Formats: sequence, structure tokens, C-alpha cells
Amino acid sequence: MEAPGPTSGTGAPPGRPLAFGDRLATAVDARCSQLVLGLDPDPMRLWPSALEPQHGVGSEPAAPDAVPAERAARAVVRHSALVIDAVGTACVAVKLQLACFERLGAAGWAALAEVAAHARDAGLLVLADGKRGDIGVSAAAYAQALLASTPTPYGEVAGLGADAVTANPLLGAETLVPLIDAARSRGAGIFVLVRTSNPGAADVQAQALAAGGDVSDRLADMVATLGADGTGGSGLSDVGAVVGATAPGRLAALRARMPAAVLLLPGVGAQGGRVEDLAPAFAPGRAGGLVAVSRGLVGAHERLGGTPADAARAEAERLRALAWSLV
Amino acid sequence: MEAPGPTSGTGAPPGRPLAFGDRLATAVDARCSQLVLGLDPDPMRLWPSALEPQHGVGSEPAAPDAVPAERAARAVVRHSALVIDAVGTACVAVKLQLACFERLGAAGWAALAEVAAHARDAGLLVLADGKRGDIGVSAAAYAQALLASTPTPYGEVAGLGADAVTANPLLGAETLVPLIDAARSRGAGIFVLVRTSNPGAADVQAQALAAGGDVSDRLADMVATLGADGTGGSGLSDVGAVVGATAPGRLAALRARMPAAVLLLPGVGAQGGRVEDLAPAFAPGRAGGLVAVSRGLVGAHERLGGTPADAARAEAERLRALAWSLV
Repeated sequence: MEAPGPTSGTGAPPGRPLAFGDRLATAVDARCSQLVLGLDPDPMRLWPSALEPQHGVGSEPAAPDAVPAERAARAVVRHSALVIDAVGTACVAVKLQLACFERLGAAGWAALAEVAAHARDAGLLVLADGKRGDIGVSAAAYAQALLASTPTPYGEVAGLGADAVTANPLLGAETLVPLIDAARSRGAGIFVLVRTSNPGAADVQAQALAAGGDVSDRLADMVATLGADGTGGSGLSDVGAVVGATAPGRLAALRARMPAAVLLLPGVGAQGGRVEDLAPAFAPGRAGGLVAVSRGLVGAHERLGGTPADAARAEAERLRALAWSLV
Repeated sequence: MEAPGPTSGTGAPPGRPLAFGDRLATAVDARCSQLVLGLDPDPMRLWPSALEPQHGVGSEPAAPDAVPAERAARAVVRHSALVIDAVGTACVAVKLQLACFERLGAAGWAALAEVAAHARDAGLLVLADGKRGDIGVSAAAYAQALLASTPTPYGEVAGLGADAVTANPLLGAETLVPLIDAARSRGAGIFVLVRTSNPGAADVQAQALAAGGDVSDRLADMVATLGADGTGGSGLSDVGAVVGATAPGRLAALRARMPAAVLLLPGVGAQGGRVEDLAPAFAPGRAGGLVAVSRGLVGAHERLGGTPADAARAEAERLRALAWSLV
């Protein structure tokens, strides 16, 4: 698998890749979309046509006597390719939930690389959503796995080649630096968890601090500081933030603390968030906010009827147009 | 790969596995050790004999024309097996740093399963150190990957079968529950990050809260609450905590907030922590604290001289005896 290797554009100094914010802004403009397709495939809830090996989309069928992990991984690749083919033109990126691939073991990790390649072929940026966070030396290993490559005595081992990763800041700013360095040197980005979309997010993130503000405010300030040196000509930084669409009341205040950050906004649809409430995210421009939708697209037929592909396509186009209209 | 499937012991109700705390206490007693071997293999810093395929420990050699990832993964398995064979008798568990396997892609994930199996064969508990933390549905997928198994239309896919996992609590208590449920139902445990061992840990974890205490105190209270229903006859819970050996000044206070938690204590050696300072961890008994050492064992020959195996064995025995003497 070859890493994407973003090439230098007109705005970048010689030898440096185009900054992530500029790459993203260009892609958003070109595709007229801020929509991110979230792929978190559950082997028991794949689109029915993904279970038919003769469909042939995305990968070779696994032999009928292959082990369950191999057969399930093949089906996950087919499903993901079908979804990408259905809604990709309405999106600017895919967000791959690493947990859903890891649970199929080595076969799942191979499937992850195949799905990333299929997304790239469809012109989409690839966000690896693993929410990794570890001490420096381990964070550097995650950077090798997802963004860069790993030197070995037998030659370099390419990583996933993601255009961006999600990262957990609980271990402090110092532990995000290896991810940022690896991302910045190749025109990729990171999205730091600041205010997540789940019901229990307030448990820790909304704890009021003695010094003022709450934990998520503190994390937002960390994002702004870490991203200061990674802002491209678009005005957008390569250190972004995850801010759940389920907490729209916090969005304007967090945006004010992180004026240059791209906000990755999950939680629309199944989790209750509404695109209409996300306008503050787009203050620095349309690429300032990315609306991530997973089950709301892949499971659209369960609410809207029709084939999975047709329902997903219609819902993606509706959400794309809605977000685009907010600026 | 078969999950370990801890069998019911005398202390467990019929049909329920022995609680993690009891399994751990039994293992600590049987091995006279609270030492955890941390394995975070860097392909460029493996023990020299791991690069010689003819050694034959741990796995088949990869063919000379295999891709770099396959060859590096074979060497990582051999290295890990050599280290386990050298120091395993002085330890009660291994802690596998998932980042170091992930960076070799699918081959690395296969290597992870092989190393876990080798550790189990050596009588060691297996801790999967991935520090995962995600919204509920994704946390459940990580639980399937590391602790349980995944249903698919082609049959059940076994996970790694770890005896315990590390978890990141930034997304709140609700998101730890799927991991705890999966662990508890099979006699496994989880270790929640409370105060990590890295220099930047204070950035977020030591922020003073308006309600009193700091973020790590709040996380410790969360651990105590989540673990209340998971305490076995040993008095130890299946919800433990990661508390860095590099912050000994915090250890007694955090122990007081989590009287039944097993404390996983990384940071001894290379990171500056000292076993001598860890006595408060062992207040509930010897299995109340697990001393995790990675580079301090695997790289012992760099400081002490001799062969890597002899130096690691001597250092492991020294640290084992030192920790054992603290109660």
C-alpha cells in the first residue's frame, strides 16, 4: 500500500507539502461538500448485496472455506466500497472507525487498508478515527502506523497513509506532538477530542476548572496553541478538534477559542445532532467544519425506504446541500 | 486463535468466571511476583538473535523474499518470545503496547496474537495496552476486538482474548461500561488511565477542579464507582487504574480514593520511577499493585552489560524481589 504523498501545490514552499488546511479547503471547494462519510461497519448489519461475493465490488471474494474473519473482512470491504460508491460524490472525506476493523484481527487490518485505498480512488480524503493517545514513544508508533511509515531492518513498512487522524489529549500536549509532527511533514492533520458527541461526554469534559472554564475549554486552548504553526494560506490549521454536533450550545464558545481549527462534527442523525445548529463551525470558511455522519447515511433506508444505496445517496445529498447553505 | 476462557474457580458462583481480582491475586501469589513485562518492540531495536531466522523461537521464519512487514513481524514475534522466555518466570503478566504491533499493519496484528499466545503458554496474564476510549458503540467494538468476540454471518470471530485492557476515560463513565461488561463476564479486567507516567501528564490530569481535587481525583472516583460491583473475594476489583510510578506523591491520595482498585504502575526505570516509592499501591495486598517495566528490562544489557537475556533476567529478578519486599 502506497502512502498518498500529497504533492506541493502553488502555496507551499519548495520541498514542503501543501498544508492540511489548504488541501482540505481546496477539496471542499472542488466537491462543494463538507460532508464526511463515517464508516463503522458491523458485520451483522452490512448492506445485503455486500454478502453476495459475486457482486465483485471492492475485492476478491473469499473462498467459502476461508475462516470467518477472512470472509467477514471481505464482506466489510465490499460493503464499504458499495457505500463509498453510493455517496462518495456528495462527500469530501471518509472517516474510518478503526475499532470496527480491529475486531476482525489481521484480516480486518488488511480490510482497513483496502477501504482507505478505495476511498482515495474515489477522490476522498481519509480520516483514521482511532482516538489514539499515549506517551510520546507510543504516540510516535501510532503516527508511524496511521500517517507515516516504520523503519525495519528489512525495509520501510508503509502505514495506512491517512490524511488525518483523531487523537485523545488526556495525556497532555506533549503526547500529541509526535502525531502533529508526522502529520505536518506530509500535509496531513489531526483532530483532537475537545467535546465529544456521546451522552456521557460531560462527565469529564464539562468539569468546571478552578482557573475558569471547563476541561473542554482547556483542551480547546491546547488545540489553538498546538496549531498555531500549522496554519496555511486558507487560514485553517492542521490541528483541528472534534466537537460533537450534539452540544451546539458549546460550539460558538469553543470556536472562539480555536479560530483556525477545522472542527470535525460527529453526532448528526442517530445521535441527535442537527446540521442546522452548526453554523458557528463555518465562521472561518466552509472548510472550517466537517459534518461526519455514519449510521444516518448507511442506515438511511431503514427510515426512508428504498434501496440502501438510493436512500444513502439521497440523504447524503440532502445533508451536503443543507451544510453548504449555512455560509 | 482461541480466547483463554478463564474457568470458574472455587470462589465464583456456578456459571460465572472467577473475578479478575481473584484470578490476579492467585497468580501473584503463585508466581511471587507483581512484575509486568512491557513489550513495545521497535523493529530497529530488537535483540540481535531475533534477527536470525534460524533461531526458531516463537514462529516460523519469514521467507527472504517476504515483504518487509511480514519479515519485521516475524522478527518481532521472535524477539518477544525470547524476552518472555528470559524474564517470564519473574513476572505475573505481559503488557503488550498495541501501537508497536499496529505499525506493521495486518502482519503486526497477527504477530500480536502470536505473542499473546506465547505469553499465555508461559503462564502469564496478557494486558492489551491500547488506551482505547470511544463512544459506546465503538467501545463495544474495541471490547470485541480485545476481550470478547465478534458475531458475523460466517461465524464468530475470536478477539485477542486479553486478560485486561487499558482504557481512556476522557469520554466519560458511560463509554467505559461496554469494556467493563465484556471484561467482567469473562473474568477479565480494565485499567483506566488516572494519572499517567509521562512528563506532560499534568497538562490535563492535574488541572484543579472548581468542585475540589483535580481531574485525576475525579477519574479515581469514577474508577471506584465503576468497580464497586466487580470486587472478588480477594477484595480487589476488576476496574483498576493506571497510575504512573513517576508521580509517587499522588499515589497515596489516589489509592485512598480507589481502595479496591488494582493499580498498574508504569514508568519505573527509563521514565524515572522507583519501585521503592510504590508501597501505597500495595495497601490492599500484594496484587494491589502491578509494576510495569518495558525498556528497563528489554534494554537492561545496555546499562548492565552481558547478553540481553542474562541482563534482563537479572534485572527482572531484582525488581521482582524489591517490589515483593514492600509488603
